[in-house]
Amino acid sequence: MQLILEKCFDMIESINNKIGSMEVVTDTFDIDASGTMKLSYLSNLMLKCAEIHATQRGWGMMQLNEGGNTWVLSRAVIEFTDDVPGENEHIILDTWVDSVMRLFTVRKFRFRNAEGRVFGYSHTVWAMINRESRKPVILVSSGGGNLTEWVDNTIECPIAGHSKISVNADSPSDIVKVKYSDIDMNGHMNSCRYIEHVLDLFSADFHSKHKIRRFEIAYMAECLCGEELSLFCEQVSNNDYNVEICKNDTNEVACRSKIVFF
Amino acid sequence: MQLILEKCFDMIESINNKIGSMEVVTDTFDIDASGTMKLSYLSNLMLKCAEIHATQRGWGMMQLNEGGNTWVLSRAVIEFTDDVPGENEHIILDTWVDSVMRLFTVRKFRFRNAEGRVFGYSHTVWAMINRESRKPVILVSSGGGNLTEWVDNTIECPIAGHSKISVNADSPSDIVKVKYSDIDMNGHMNSCRYIEHVLDLFSADFHSKHKIRRFEIAYMAECLCGEELSLFCEQVSNNDYNVEICKNDTNEVACRSKIVFF
Repeated sequence: MQLILEKCFDMIESINNKIGSMEVVTDTFDIDASGTMKLSYLSNLMLKCAEIHATQRGWGMMQLNEGGNTWVLSRAVIEFTDDVPGENEHIILDTWVDSVMRLFTVRKFRFRNAEGRVFGYSHTVWAMINRESRKPVILVSSGGGNLTEWVDNTIECPIAGHSKISVNADSPSDIVKVKYSDIDMNGHMNSCRYIEHVLDLFSADFHSKHKIRRFEIAYMAECLCGEELSLFCEQVSNNDYNVEICKNDTNEVACRSKIVFF
Repeated sequence: MQLILEKCFDMIESINNKIGSMEVVTDTFDIDASGTMKLSYLSNLMLKCAEIHATQRGWGMMQLNEGGNTWVLSRAVIEFTDDVPGENEHIILDTWVDSVMRLFTVRKFRFRNAEGRVFGYSHTVWAMINRESRKPVILVSSGGGNLTEWVDNTIECPIAGHSKISVNADSPSDIVKVKYSDIDMNGHMNSCRYIEHVLDLFSADFHSKHKIRRFEIAYMAECLCGEELSLFCEQVSNNDYNVEICKNDTNEVACRSKIVFF
């Protein structure tokens, strides 16, 4: 019996330079009803791409875990052109470390299609925390090397950074309970699920008629299985919505998000 | 600026034999709170693996779409050993066509870890339907070739086929609404989301203490965005639960499922 081995997700090689790139082909299951790649799919790829890039440089989750630490995504801004790929298209994610501060590092992304045309950028902010105490770790002195040696701040990422988001709404647009499938290995709701909950405030029909131009999210509290969340939504202007997810038990804000449609 | 190109998801080559294999590495985000690979993650990989295998042989979704047809998953049975991989482990999915009947084809899977140890099998049943009429197409006379030429029924898949599932429960254990993120390109709830809704009837804590030994699902109706679903659950014996998902508007059964824990 002969086997074909197709490597998927896997790193083909580890090269000691600053930009990492990952090429994927979209499937039917990664596409929404209007034929556009889902943002939640792309955000999952971004996490995988960041993890592969970091691991190749000695700063992956598993490597940090050995020292009792882990990465947490703090903020993300993603902007798209009106030319986001659909089904069965090759997409390339480029990622690099833009800067390293005391408690945060900025990782940027560029998204390209098979012809090399850029269809989006992302600006993400990460903190390193201790897995037990959940407290932040000072970045410049952590890990098995110097994180700053990977910085490249010469690469263009022409989108505005995150904004201050406030939400003025009297009653929740939806209430959801955090469930088993929302939770990842850390025991908390996965970053991509926050994004899905925000996008789910709009119907599939609405999404078909309104493509996302800009998406922002600020993660503020970790959500546990069984917690009940209220989603508040304010339409700020014609195509611009601010969303806040709050924990019903404690009134704590879990995240704030902004979606600007075309 | 130098780029590294890491191919992910992509088919490296198309070889004209009967078994297709796909190797992936699990990430933190694919793992549940107890450190075990999520079934919903594996089921998504199974769909991707099936699609790559079918496409290489001329029977992929895009190829069928040209003739106005598509594949739908009708039933799946998955069984695991107590040795399902965790984080950052290489897993290999092998898939092949076991049989082709008039209206259904059986595709089987074997799951192996990096050392080649088998940790599970799956038996899946697929129908080909017309995208417009949603009616089944006769398989032996469809598509661009002879589907039966890919059949290999000599490969071992030592798990029982699907059983007849009935659910006796007076009131729903949960009610969910079908949302944008549940829907894929076909405009219906994605097969993996049915599985997530079933598994979400059990808490992360319960899943940590009870690993899945066998999972069955029979898809019976397509769910649309906005539909409200009731989930009924009957504990049949100590570790054995039957689940039925019904549409609230029409009382139509959307799927039936059985979960047997260790």
